[in-house]
Amino acid sequence: MIIDCHGHYTTAPKALETWRNRQIAAIGDPAQTPKASELKISDDELSESIAANQLKFMHERGADLTIFSPRASFMAHHIGDFAVSSTWAAICNELIHRVSQLFPENFIGAAMLPQSPGVDPKTCIPELDRCVKEHGFVAINLNPDPSGGHWTSPPLTDRHWWPIYEKMVEYDIPAMVHVSTSCNPCFHTTGAHYINADTTALMQFIQGDLFKDFPTLRFVIPHGGGAGPYHWGRYRGLAQELKKPLLKEHLLRNVFFDTCVYHQPGIDLLTNVIPVDNILFASEMIGAVRGIDPETGHHYDDTKRYIEAAKNLTPDQRRKVYEGNARRVYPRLDRTLKAQGR
Amino acid sequence: MIIDCHGHYTTAPKALETWRNRQIAAIGDPAQTPKASELKISDDELSESIAANQLKFMHERGADLTIFSPRASFMAHHIGDFAVSSTWAAICNELIHRVSQLFPENFIGAAMLPQSPGVDPKTCIPELDRCVKEHGFVAINLNPDPSGGHWTSPPLTDRHWWPIYEKMVEYDIPAMVHVSTSCNPCFHTTGAHYINADTTALMQFIQGDLFKDFPTLRFVIPHGGGAGPYHWGRYRGLAQELKKPLLKEHLLRNVFFDTCVYHQPGIDLLTNVIPVDNILFASEMIGAVRGIDPETGHHYDDTKRYIEAAKNLTPDQRRKVYEGNARRVYPRLDRTLKAQGR
Repeated sequence: MIIDCHGHYTTAPKALETWRNRQIAAIGDPAQTPKASELKISDDELSESIAANQLKFMHERGADLTIFSPRASFMAHHIGDFAVSSTWAAICNELIHRVSQLFPENFIGAAMLPQSPGVDPKTCIPELDRCVKEHGFVAINLNPDPSGGHWTSPPLTDRHWWPIYEKMVEYDIPAMVHVSTSCNPCFHTTGAHYINADTTALMQFIQGDLFKDFPTLRFVIPHGGGAGPYHWGRYRGLAQELKKPLLKEHLLRNVFFDTCVYHQPGIDLLTNVIPVDNILFASEMIGAVRGIDPETGHHYDDTKRYIEAAKNLTPDQRRKVYEGNARRVYPRLDRTLKAQGR
Repeated sequence: MIIDCHGHYTTAPKALETWRNRQIAAIGDPAQTPKASELKISDDELSESIAANQLKFMHERGADLTIFSPRASFMAHHIGDFAVSSTWAAICNELIHRVSQLFPENFIGAAMLPQSPGVDPKTCIPELDRCVKEHGFVAINLNPDPSGGHWTSPPLTDRHWWPIYEKMVEYDIPAMVHVSTSCNPCFHTTGAHYINADTTALMQFIQGDLFKDFPTLRFVIPHGGGAGPYHWGRYRGLAQELKKPLLKEHLLRNVFFDTCVYHQPGIDLLTNVIPVDNILFASEMIGAVRGIDPETGHHYDDTKRYIEAAKNLTPDQRRKVYEGNARRVYPRLDRTLKAQGR
């Protein structure tokens, strides 16, 4: 089985965006705020938006199951206050849940949280609870910078984030570290802010001792770990300067990297440098980079091709990247799959 | 000849730091501000601080000449106002000039600019002029984020920066894009802020059309181009989405990467992905990562070992990385070398 641990619902029916635009327009004029119930998307519309897009590519490329979450760039936690984020997150997660009900063999949910800059993360717990307990979600996306490129929250190693971590431990779910749209003109959203956030989170984990306090906490750093693997010598050396244990002990029991790296040399480096147990297959397809690479004739985000061609991987190791590691890092996914007889 | 295009004076005599601390302590109490003339460092002290450190390693590792600039993390443009930065930059550049006079075959200057958050970059021109015309410097370091991790300046493609660019074109000097200390607790200075700044600058250049307006402007992105080469497929794909020309035309006539990547797989990727004409040898030694890699028994920042071992490079290509490219990207360096009969 091939599990893609990083997919967003980037192809939701237009009605979702229209509703969101109304919600944003009503900030400062609450009487205009649309009700959640005013958003009408039928099962047929949902099915179509998936079947013609993600599911089609999954069939063509050969992926079986996607861990699916709301569109990352639309989370936009910087917009409005907690109430705005709360309603928006509930709507987006609900759609993911419906997709996973419509295609139970192909999609399983990961939650967006109703984060809001300057607001205590514990306010996210009710939505997190609902997504895990009622919707059967197997993970969350955690935004280390709900300000959208101004980086006003404390580092991920700060106690600020502990209410979320306590829930992650209780439910045994991992978090993917994933920012949203940048509203800082210095940072292109998918070209700078996403990758910088990955690199930043990695270094925060190296600098801190979070996993002493939470030995079972697990994070997936997307986009191949940002700059991490390319600069692995730098990070090993910085950990050494900081008198930390080897990264194998200090970091790699708790931190995993996905394979959203859109060319063969990048995947070759990732699979060369990072232990195979820490690499999870992912494509983030129909995402940031949707085009066809003129150098290969294939979609940039068809990452399975790179994994297939990666000379560093044996067939057994490839199975870990495709399936085994995801079942270990997302135990609730493993349980759901087993209940389905898979 | 082997030219290291990225060295900072990280080993200056203690008196420099003491003077700076007095300057910082006097902010808000100008009567206490020390005079530049109160800083006394003898030629012997300067010589010693270099001979026992950078020069020793250059001899041991086999580099001939370093393009040398003030310590990056000490630039700290976020501290004080323009007057504070101005005095500090002049002092630091003066020391670099003296080092280059003491060791004219081994060091040549690159200027730190007296940037200050919110201040028009054209205020940096007098110091830039002095460094080029009086000190014979061959390049500048340009900080895209003088706020120190808050990213409050416009992107490097904004007209805000044009006064600097006009001077760079006039003098035919490149800029290394280099931030300084992060005062944002999210960003570890050398583990996140430096690398993020590289990635950010790269994406700004891709997003903009700066080199249409300045076809001869040249930037060196240090630390191997941040996350750029590892995610080269992503950047090619994003350029394509933005309807830009191929990166070869859009970026690589004007943007170059150094080799400050502290392990073999990183250098292998860099030399595989980036055309050899765009790669400049550098170590940034006695910098962020000073330790010995237990996996190799050698210093992490002894990057010449990786270049020597890089299977992608022919001897001719290696000579370009070591010397030819630097002479092309830094024409004033080439002229100085030729005047020395080298």
